[in-house]
Amino acid sequence: MKLNIAVLPGDGIGPEVTAQAIKVLKAIAMEFNHVFTFEKALVGACAMDKTGIPLPEETISICDKADAILFGAIGDPKYDNDPLATVRPEQGLLGLRKTFDLYTNIRPVIAYDDLLNKSSLKTKQIKGSNILIYRELASGIYFGDKHFSNNEASDICKYKRSDIERITHLAFKAAQGRKHKLTLVDKANVLASSRLWRTVVNEISKEYPDVTLDCMYVDNAAMELIINPRQFDVILTENMFGDILSEEASVIVGSIGLLASASIGDKHAMFEPIHGAYTKAKNKGIANPIASILSAAMLLDHFGLYDEAALIREGVDKSLKLHITTPDLNTKYDNISTTKVGDFIEDFINNPDETNLN
Amino acid sequence: MKLNIAVLPGDGIGPEVTAQAIKVLKAIAMEFNHVFTFEKALVGACAMDKTGIPLPEETISICDKADAILFGAIGDPKYDNDPLATVRPEQGLLGLRKTFDLYTNIRPVIAYDDLLNKSSLKTKQIKGSNILIYRELASGIYFGDKHFSNNEASDICKYKRSDIERITHLAFKAAQGRKHKLTLVDKANVLASSRLWRTVVNEISKEYPDVTLDCMYVDNAAMELIINPRQFDVILTENMFGDILSEEASVIVGSIGLLASASIGDKHAMFEPIHGAYTKAKNKGIANPIASILSAAMLLDHFGLYDEAALIREGVDKSLKLHITTPDLNTKYDNISTTKVGDFIEDFINNPDETNLN
Ligand SMILES: CC(C)[C@H](C(=O)O)[C@@H](O)C(=O)O
Ligand SMILES: CC(C)[C@H](C(=O)O)[C@@H](O)C(=O)O
Repeated sequence: MKLNIAVLPGDGIGPEVTAQAIKVLKAIAMEFNHVFTFEKALVGACAMDKTGIPLPEETISICDKADAILFGAIGDPKYDNDPLATVRPEQGLLGLRKTFDLYTNIRPVIAYDDLLNKSSLKTKQIKGSNILIYRELASGIYFGDKHFSNNEASDICKYKRSDIERITHLAFKAAQGRKHKLTLVDKANVLASSRLWRTVVNEISKEYPDVTLDCMYVDNAAMELIINPRQFDVILTENMFGDILSEEASVIVGSIGLLASASIGDKHAMFEPIHGAYTKAKNKGIANPIASILSAAMLLDHFGLYDEAALIREGVDKSLKLHITTPDLNTKYDNISTTKVGDFIEDFINNPDETNLN
Repeated sequence: MKLNIAVLPGDGIGPEVTAQAIKVLKAIAMEFNHVFTFEKALVGACAMDKTGIPLPEETISICDKADAILFGAIGDPKYDNDPLATVRPEQGLLGLRKTFDLYTNIRPVIAYDDLLNKSSLKTKQIKGSNILIYRELASGIYFGDKHFSNNEASDICKYKRSDIERITHLAFKAAQGRKHKLTLVDKANVLASSRLWRTVVNEISKEYPDVTLDCMYVDNAAMELIINPRQFDVILTENMFGDILSEEASVIVGSIGLLASASIGDKHAMFEPIHGAYTKAKNKGIANPIASILSAAMLLDHFGLYDEAALIREGVDKSLKLHITTPDLNTKYDNISTTKVGDFIEDFINNPDETNLN
């Protein structure tokens, strides 16, 4: 298969983790006789530094022509200090989501057996947890009209029925391929937009009689995610709640450096770690590349390259088992760098049967 | 002191837990020669059942004349099934908050040494955690204009500068009496309303040079609360984020049945457990009354009755130490009812030196 991949390393640790994902994708291309080409483009703070704007036209055009977008991270503390600034790095990411209408953000949360002891949660709480979060990504309070003055500010959370319908079908279908359970998270006891979500999702649930639908208030869900994560299969929620719950859910996995995501639209798809720019760690070799590498695996899944994606995941599993991990996870070895983790998974792909430390 | 307390038991387990708080307040009145009078009123689903509306005029008038309001819980599943209903129990609670302009909701989150093993989190994560959440309660997306049609729905999150200023001063003052640290939780990288929060809180921080101000994005805060709760002293946040984070934070304490809150306005104050109606547990004698009893302690604190409040808290501590607790916390005895916990704390107040199981 030929895939033309736009690479947007972005800010902070974005470039170093993306470099590992590319390395791994190149190994996959070699091993399976695919042709993957990569074209880099600017987004975020680095784009502002060079062009003055966070999402240059050229970047949009490169992404538009590509089959998929591999995204790193966005944001820089130097642009965080002025809450009154009208141009901000994050607009680059939000602009991509809006421009390409990437309305479904999929975030898998898996408690790896080899990492159970890394979590802040007790092992018995999390063992076996496997949650797929479907977060609406192109509407809601992120994109509603905004108003700001020195005396008053407001944001609108608006959902159209069609915004809800399209992701809801995808979420139900995902549940059909898993444990047949869908939990809608909303705040229908307070918000009108949540009541529309509940109405539409209830209606659509009739088309998926083999899936059990549960509705849960977001405050309660934030607690249940911690005290009983195994109750969840697929979680469906709106943009802001999905942002909060998915980052919270990283505690189940043990490190946010492991969480990958796919942002899917009807014509475009973007793949990115859910961690941010983590500027403090930049260029220190300590950034965990696994979230970016697993995002590359989600990219391959998206194009039906399931064996290829599975091989990457095997490589990741093996790196975790053998403690070939960055310091956020490693208590055994203290000098395993970002690059070294990428190299290990690359080697594993080239030689799945031989890669072993022992 | 004379205190005229409006009691709004509400729905679900509200009445049974509130009864224990009243019992404890009566014991305090006796012991310290105060005169506490209690006047009951309807709110929520039970008010809808009897009067058709969730917050009857009579209830408003009773609360208006009272020195303080003791609130139980609100909501009933029978009103949850129709997302299109225009009258809902929760409007009773929101109506109280708005009518009496109860703009500051204070939620203490404390990891009790005797309960560390009850938490889903590892003991070493939570030991020593002591967080005070200041949640804005009378504005934001809860109260902005709402629009609902079958095809589109929206909510507005609006904040005026003055809404932010008044709670911010209280939060800074609270931090001055504690560990001198305030964390503002917002989503200033996306929301205009959050940027106003950040602007105003930054400005006001200059008046409190002895308090360190930290700003954190809400998604990140949802994770940090779990992986490093001890970093927090006072958390200040807007209405919806406070709802989510405070319920999430209950996992640090070990049971949501322990979390009390105070909702303070310039003229009125209301005290309530943060748990909800928990209808499944109604009338089974298993509802934990401690959140309601600790809310009564916050009521006493509010009127400067610190010794009285402290005595209640000692009684609660003792009940935890001796395992006189409802089943949500108890692994030692399996038949300690809601009433029994209330009785124990009442006895303790009457006879602080003698109450002991041994
Ligand atoms: C960087 C920020 C705008 C973004 C979001 O809030 O969506 C991030 O937190 C995420 O979850 O992808
Ligand atoms: C019952 C509900 C309206 C309420 C809220 O969302 O504020 C509750 O969750 C709370 O936290 O007091």
